[in-house]
Amino acid sequence: MEYRRLGSSGLKLSALSFGAWITFGRQLGRKEARELIACAWDHGVNFFDNAETYAAGEAERVMGDALTDLRLPRDAYCVSSKVYFGASAEPRPTQRGLSRKHVIEACHQALARLRVDYLDLYFCHRPDPETPIEETVRAMDDLIRNGKVLYWGTSEWPAELILRAHAFARAEHLHPPQMEQPEYNLLRRARVEVEYAPLYREIGLGTTTWSPLASGVLSGKYADGVPAGSRLATPGFEWLRERLQGAEGEARLARARRLAELARELGVTSAQLAIAWCLNNAHVSSVILGASRRAQLEENLGALPLAKRLDAATMARIEAAAA
Amino acid sequence: MEYRRLGSSGLKLSALSFGAWITFGRQLGRKEARELIACAWDHGVNFFDNAETYAAGEAERVMGDALTDLRLPRDAYCVSSKVYFGASAEPRPTQRGLSRKHVIEACHQALARLRVDYLDLYFCHRPDPETPIEETVRAMDDLIRNGKVLYWGTSEWPAELILRAHAFARAEHLHPPQMEQPEYNLLRRARVEVEYAPLYREIGLGTTTWSPLASGVLSGKYADGVPAGSRLATPGFEWLRERLQGAEGEARLARARRLAELARELGVTSAQLAIAWCLNNAHVSSVILGASRRAQLEENLGALPLAKRLDAATMARIEAAAA
Amino acid sequence: MEYRRLGSSGLKLSALSFGAWITFGRQLGRKEARELIACAWDHGVNFFDNAETYAAGEAERVMGDALTDLRLPRDAYCVSSKVYFGASAEPRPTQRGLSRKHVIEACHQALARLRVDYLDLYFCHRPDPETPIEETVRAMDDLIRNGKVLYWGTSEWPAELILRAHAFARAEHLHPPQMEQPEYNLLRRARVEVEYAPLYREIGLGTTTWSPLASGVLSGKYADGVPAGSRLATPGFEWLRERLQGAEGEARLARARRLAELARELGVTSAQLAIAWCLNNAHVSSVILGASRRAQLEENLGALPLAKRLDAATMARIEAAAA
Amino acid sequence: MEYRRLGSSGLKLSALSFGAWITFGRQLGRKEARELIACAWDHGVNFFDNAETYAAGEAERVMGDALTDLRLPRDAYCVSSKVYFGASAEPRPTQRGLSRKHVIEACHQALARLRVDYLDLYFCHRPDPETPIEETVRAMDDLIRNGKVLYWGTSEWPAELILRAHAFARAEHLHPPQMEQPEYNLLRRARVEVEYAPLYREIGLGTTTWSPLASGVLSGKYADGVPAGSRLATPGFEWLRERLQGAEGEARLARARRLAELARELGVTSAQLAIAWCLNNAHVSSVILGASRRAQLEENLGALPLAKRLDAATMARIEAAAA
Repeated sequence: MEYRRLGSSGLKLSALSFGAWITFGRQLGRKEARELIACAWDHGVNFFDNAETYAAGEAERVMGDALTDLRLPRDAYCVSSKVYFGASAEPRPTQRGLSRKHVIEACHQALARLRVDYLDLYFCHRPDPETPIEETVRAMDDLIRNGKVLYWGTSEWPAELILRAHAFARAEHLHPPQMEQPEYNLLRRARVEVEYAPLYREIGLGTTTWSPLASGVLSGKYADGVPAGSRLATPGFEWLRERLQGAEGEARLARARRLAELARELGVTSAQLAIAWCLNNAHVSSVILGASRRAQLEENLGALPLAKRLDAATMARIEAAAA
Repeated sequence: MEYRRLGSSGLKLSALSFGAWITFGRQLGRKEARELIACAWDHGVNFFDNAETYAAGEAERVMGDALTDLRLPRDAYCVSSKVYFGASAEPRPTQRGLSRKHVIEACHQALARLRVDYLDLYFCHRPDPETPIEETVRAMDDLIRNGKVLYWGTSEWPAELILRAHAFARAEHLHPPQMEQPEYNLLRRARVEVEYAPLYREIGLGTTTWSPLASGVLSGKYADGVPAGSRLATPGFEWLRERLQGAEGEARLARARRLAELARELGVTSAQLAIAWCLNNAHVSSVILGASRRAQLEENLGALPLAKRLDAATMARIEAAAA
Repeated sequence: MEYRRLGSSGLKLSALSFGAWITFGRQLGRKEARELIACAWDHGVNFFDNAETYAAGEAERVMGDALTDLRLPRDAYCVSSKVYFGASAEPRPTQRGLSRKHVIEACHQALARLRVDYLDLYFCHRPDPETPIEETVRAMDDLIRNGKVLYWGTSEWPAELILRAHAFARAEHLHPPQMEQPEYNLLRRARVEVEYAPLYREIGLGTTTWSPLASGVLSGKYADGVPAGSRLATPGFEWLRERLQGAEGEARLARARRLAELARELGVTSAQLAIAWCLNNAHVSSVILGASRRAQLEENLGALPLAKRLDAATMARIEAAAA
Repeated sequence: MEYRRLGSSGLKLSALSFGAWITFGRQLGRKEARELIACAWDHGVNFFDNAETYAAGEAERVMGDALTDLRLPRDAYCVSSKVYFGASAEPRPTQRGLSRKHVIEACHQALARLRVDYLDLYFCHRPDPETPIEETVRAMDDLIRNGKVLYWGTSEWPAELILRAHAFARAEHLHPPQMEQPEYNLLRRARVEVEYAPLYREIGLGTTTWSPLASGVLSGKYADGVPAGSRLATPGFEWLRERLQGAEGEARLARARRLAELARELGVTSAQLAIAWCLNNAHVSSVILGASRRAQLEENLGALPLAKRLDAATMARIEAAAA
């Protein structure tokens, strides 16, 4: 495994990490989750990503049990949570958002579900237009000073808001945000490559990127339509199904098919190629993988040696295929 | 129920909330209080207001037992306390006021009585001319940083003192006050509408207003004199009885009678009309209701749909009636 | 009892308070100490003064047991400790002074001996030329923020050092010192009346003064020499005995004798007159009394009504007698 | 014993202190370590130095057991730990360095091994080019404010980095670093005497120096080659063996031999002379001794009276011998 600094910070995350999104607490029960975490750990993964909203808190409970069962050394791995959407299907007004009340309560609830004393990373899962950034920054700082959180950051925030949070923290002598968790893949590049570019330089932002396969599109599995039983066929994933429909959807699938051809030519899988491409962006601290089966996880972990092999010419061909 | 932000903060309170003042621990024992809280909760109320001085601490004990019995989810409701008057009939010199000693001790005592780990809202119940504002602001900040309080504010403070507290907090990088709890009703409007006007803009002040019925006067129940058994007839309420005496008192009752006529015309009750009028002030975060019977509480909760129906013309008629 | 603010702070101390110095843990065992504290409490005393060094910690143990036995309400009284001299006859190098290590360790030890969760007042018992003021101020601030201390101050510090501590605290946004504990009596007036004068105005300094009887000299009991069994006859009080020897000592005794004559004329005791004189300085927040017998304590408590009776002319006569 | 302030701080350390490096948890088991600590304590030593990396944590466990067994008064001694290298032979990426995660986790682990509630001194064992100094300074400040550490500092940091850490701490109102732990002996003088010179003046830096005998070279025991069973003959000490090889190594040994001659002439041992020379640098707060036998420790402790006897002429002869 390769380890990278989380932006300018001293925290070293595995370049490939493992997330609970979609799978934990849904397809995956405690036993399966434990096996996948053990597999990732054996391959050197040291960052396990989670959020209050994943399976309405159940993803954190499953991960907490697995981490406890496996007796992983607490100082050798990092675990995250994210606050914003709440941990229930129908959160009440104070059970979501980035108010001091919810940021603090959600942290304590995540600690209980994950069965740890502190979160290594704690993300604001979305901007909250109904809470002043100042209130959220102060709450994060209080959590860090009280030892409940080590590093805090954002997920899917526009660069301008991240800068405002950072500036307020510095002006008030508070712990500034250290990382972002953006979507990043061959089909969605602008934010990580363009919008955040000044932030890497100016505030040392780290990134833990999600959806390297564009929710499975780049794995090639939707090339011939949506298979029954796949994520896209289940309720709650209408947003994803829509991404594949219409002219734009067809264009996306075409790009996925061209990528698959190139992968075949190189003797690797589409998924490996797509992940390896993400890894070759130096501003990516860690690419978060999702997987529901061991074989799939191991396939994806194979992207790391592949990434080291890819030369500039091949990188250009990948980008051309997905353009 | 409608939920409103507490001023500029991210905390969302129900537009109608429920307070323990006067009733809890006096007319109302544990069982009755629990039923009223359950009723309010079922109607969407998420803020329960209290103070150390209400029934000398007994109001908090009653509420704490009720909240515990009902097993309301801690992250779905807000509970407050207020410090200044002390929690006994004859407080000793260090048992009242806004000294660091009393602010901190009163907080811990309220937590024990309310049976919670932290107060969502903690108010300075009056200004204390014998304690420098700086001392109180520092004590509040320490309580917030130590997780004992989420938001702090004031009750019945002149605008100028609120601004001074806010300015000191900002200059010293401390948690600033976020809300005020003023009296607000058709008979007492100036402070909320005029005096505090700059504070909404400049420091994002929220308000949780008390006495929407002017201590019952606007409910019309004193139109024909003080009934035996009513609050005004009991010792300790001389201050209220005086408000209804003399030329000024007569004028007040006349306004209440005109309001009652209008209410009859609109097919609602005086109380509903008076409360609905408060709700239509956008700077009011939450109107605190008191009630000693379920029917009364439900009547008052009916003010919310009414408020949405009131057009500008009717609002003007209400104000004219109470002028 | 009369209660006074501790300088500009909101803390109200009884104008007469009761200290453990010299008596507790020496002449006075647990039973006697408890009775004296009960007596003081019954007369309205709410401040009990102590220090790590009094009887090498035993004075605090005795007081802690007494406060616990008497079940005084924690929010109705104040208890102090002082750090500097250490709590043993032969302190090791890290067991005395105002280093961060000793300030913090001494606080926790005093809390254990006094059997309380926090000290209301915590004094630096002397300046420590071998510790930078900055280190001590930071340690005090950390104790206050962690809830172990409510107010901190100094004892027998020159005005200039108090100002430096205050200035550093304000510059670094730390809790500033609030009070001094100086010796103050008819024979030693300059520091309280002249040296500290600017501090009352500029930083709102409060004072809890010790030795209103100049270690018994003003009680008149040494007028005819040192009685056997009196404090001055016991080892460890050589410093006090010396104060009464030589030309200066004789002058002191002469002043005490003139004061005794005046007291007789006014029909009060020397001690009452000396204490009442202290009380009439508005910058004195509380005069700390020591006593080894109930009768003596009650005599001294009688100084408060006396003080209110003394007119300007009598005050001038007192000062002339002691000049 | 003589006690010295740790730079400008108020902490007083014994001029000679005792370290666990190399010996504890290797040659020395619990019983031997306890006896040596008891011996040092009986001679007035009050500072016991340790680090997470010494014998991979075992040195701290051994010391913690010894301190507990001996029931030394917690406020009379100081114990240290150091963070950077990790506490295992093969630390994982998050188990070493000066990231917030490792600084905080290593502190809690050291507290558990040493069986104390707080570290008196906590050192950054080396600079970490992969962590911004700001992150480490903030983590140290949080540990101090939470009562887990009393003083923090560095070990083997270049002056420029110490100054940067200090400047950042002051600008952000955080606890600044207070001490350095450099190697200092007759063969390695420049850093302590030249590089750090401005730091003593400007930031009041204290120093706890290690290796007064240059890892045994100055004891004279390698004069005739490396004896079997000595440290240099064991695996893991290649770096030390190399220091004695080649032209440079020969020069070192020659200096050691000249020192031995002088020692013989003065009727003391080489080790005593070398240690006494260190003690006579006023900027050295404490010279850390290592020892694996009681006789050796007592011999080394004899350097203190010797140091007081050495006049300027003899100091010059020592320096000439080692030049």
